[in-house]
Amino acid sequence: MPHPTPGLVGPFAWTTEAAARRAEAGLTRALRPRPAAWGTLDLAGNDYLGLARHPEVTGAAAEAAGRWGAGATGSRLVSGSTALHAELERELADFCGAEAALVLSSGYAANLAAVTALAPAGTLLVSDTSNHASLIDGCRLARGTTEVVAHADPDAVRKALAAHRGPALGVFDAVFSVDGDAAPLPALAAACREHGAGILVDDAHGLGVLGEGGRGSAHAAELAGAPDTVVTVTLSKSLGSQGGAVLGPAAVIDHLVNTARTLIFDTGLAPAAAGAALAALRLLRAEPDRAARVRRTARALYEGIAGAGLQAARPDAAVVSVRAPSAQEAADWAARCREQGVAVGCFRPPSVPDGISRLRLTARADLTSADLDRALTVLTRTAPPSARRAGGGGAAGAPGVRPSVQGPGR
Amino acid sequence: MPHPTPGLVGPFAWTTEAAARRAEAGLTRALRPRPAAWGTLDLAGNDYLGLARHPEVTGAAAEAAGRWGAGATGSRLVSGSTALHAELERELADFCGAEAALVLSSGYAANLAAVTALAPAGTLLVSDTSNHASLIDGCRLARGTTEVVAHADPDAVRKALAAHRGPALGVFDAVFSVDGDAAPLPALAAACREHGAGILVDDAHGLGVLGEGGRGSAHAAELAGAPDTVVTVTLSKSLGSQGGAVLGPAAVIDHLVNTARTLIFDTGLAPAAAGAALAALRLLRAEPDRAARVRRTARALYEGIAGAGLQAARPDAAVVSVRAPSAQEAADWAARCREQGVAVGCFRPPSVPDGISRLRLTARADLTSADLDRALTVLTRTAPPSARRAGGGGAAGAPGVRPSVQGPGR
Repeated sequence: MPHPTPGLVGPFAWTTEAAARRAEAGLTRALRPRPAAWGTLDLAGNDYLGLARHPEVTGAAAEAAGRWGAGATGSRLVSGSTALHAELERELADFCGAEAALVLSSGYAANLAAVTALAPAGTLLVSDTSNHASLIDGCRLARGTTEVVAHADPDAVRKALAAHRGPALGVFDAVFSVDGDAAPLPALAAACREHGAGILVDDAHGLGVLGEGGRGSAHAAELAGAPDTVVTVTLSKSLGSQGGAVLGPAAVIDHLVNTARTLIFDTGLAPAAAGAALAALRLLRAEPDRAARVRRTARALYEGIAGAGLQAARPDAAVVSVRAPSAQEAADWAARCREQGVAVGCFRPPSVPDGISRLRLTARADLTSADLDRALTVLTRTAPPSARRAGGGGAAGAPGVRPSVQGPGR
Repeated sequence: MPHPTPGLVGPFAWTTEAAARRAEAGLTRALRPRPAAWGTLDLAGNDYLGLARHPEVTGAAAEAAGRWGAGATGSRLVSGSTALHAELERELADFCGAEAALVLSSGYAANLAAVTALAPAGTLLVSDTSNHASLIDGCRLARGTTEVVAHADPDAVRKALAAHRGPALGVFDAVFSVDGDAAPLPALAAACREHGAGILVDDAHGLGVLGEGGRGSAHAAELAGAPDTVVTVTLSKSLGSQGGAVLGPAAVIDHLVNTARTLIFDTGLAPAAAGAALAALRLLRAEPDRAARVRRTARALYEGIAGAGLQAARPDAAVVSVRAPSAQEAADWAARCREQGVAVGCFRPPSVPDGISRLRLTARADLTSADLDRALTVLTRTAPPSARRAGGGGAAGAPGVRPSVQGPGR
């Protein structure tokens, strides 16, 4: 892990001053590489279905590397498309109910591809204020103009669209990464449709968790396969691998193949990652209860936390957000949890522009009730006193935790 | 492979019209998934050292998936950093002569991270007009302002910097992807230093090919380890895997950890890709002649092509660019090569904003002279008559092939 160079001179010397300011504010971030034998209960990652270490998934990764090579060797348009990529795209589209799919090297790249390719000059992008960083960057790169609207607010979408003449695209995270709340997709879609706008749904945290058998938020909202809807997903969360995908009408996918810069000018996804994601998808299809299990686990985790008097947000998917009194106390709290063998996420400014720091816990389909007990014991034992509110009213009493923005982990 | 949906209605119907316009102009792109048993000589990919299928590299990928899981499970800042990532970063920095390194999920992400984190508001970005799409997108996302300057022109850099007060960053591809020409890095760096500007070098196509034992363009230019220089590389070309990295002073790397959105808000690189890249790096270190071999092969390929009267650009690294008479003839020529068992890249507008379509051939360290003979035979046999100029003056006579921009395959 790099440490700031003392006395760095020259044009980048300002980075050491920026580091000092972060340290003063208690906002220093550092990489903490984990060992292979990690005796830690992981409630920080996004491996919602517990498939990243499933032997069929890691075995498929190994087999794909041996069969296809360690890398894709080039752009998907040159040498980087294999029959394995095509197979993954077919099965992913079929599972999610879309006509076609396109796999990219990350969820970030998928969002940049979808937003920029579908919003040429003259297009109005209507973007939820809590959208993920990759959607925001997509809007900034797109040639269209962007209007940021209030979180999960169909009327705000309607108002923005009513004031615009010409093509438009509504851009929405389906499940918000930090607080785990779900967007009101049917109402947002209705607002878009009233004005003939396209709909772009980022379902990074919904695939494998929400909808029938984990088919995702768009499927649950009956948007899958609609000619006016495009969905992005990641392969790095419920599917335990790496990569992202765009799902939609074949004509839209073909348009991305021809114009999306993060597809054209990026090396294709490594075969091992494509193989692992395909194996995970097949496991999810064969064992659809995994999706229901992660939702049950998240609710149990939330109820335990709220029952202990901590301020948590009721989870719509796999993420449980717990409010911390300050950035420094959040970091200290997370460090105490880690020391006691439970890894939790810690989100502080600038990842939470509302200024409220949180711990972020993720449920997994493979957590046992003993795991949950252990997590709750450690979380409550290490909580700063001011994290508890009088009367233990955490369950209903955490409106201030929302809205939030841009959680890590795309 | 998706085909345009006939009669797509609604807000995305315009994508079918765009497809029709592309088809009319002969500019349709399509994915062509390759089979596992690909009886084709691959001169299209960027696996310059022939390591993507090396058993030690694919074996390391398989081992890493089994040991660490198929995915990193979260952001590098949350659960996505393993000791394997840290080991790769240490060895990569050491090999390239940098103080520290940071691994991201793609070269595209590495460039977005480096450019945006090092160009806050008030910074002037001086960007070569032929830079890769990911550098261009980085400049567009950065809060600083960008001045695009002439290709490989230190005086143009000097002039842009002289007109600016405040921090500045020169942004240069070290080897240009489409034509394979190398930037005059020492002169560009001198121009930056005259004005106290930082230097950002993208060495995606130089690592493993140029410099002592493949240490890259910045090492060759004596810029490696300099406090004013940051280098980005990919793990998906010479290292046969997937991913990208930023190399530079530890304070700069620490700054990226704290601020770079494509690091913070993206899932970490899959362990299999990290393990494969590390194994490839160790092979390169153990067998430094691989770098010289790919350069020799590229020169032999070029000489054969130019000797046959085709218009090729003299290669500075592993890429040999061959001029085609038109976009349609380039596509047809590439298709004929493919039918005859040789895969070559085909770059057409809008990937080549100078409007000149090309075939792009890549040398590999593991090509035999029989491979080269076969490639030359097929390339010349399938060439459109107008690709040949009178007198066969291709060797010296291809100034028009340069400059070019934004080749696929980051």
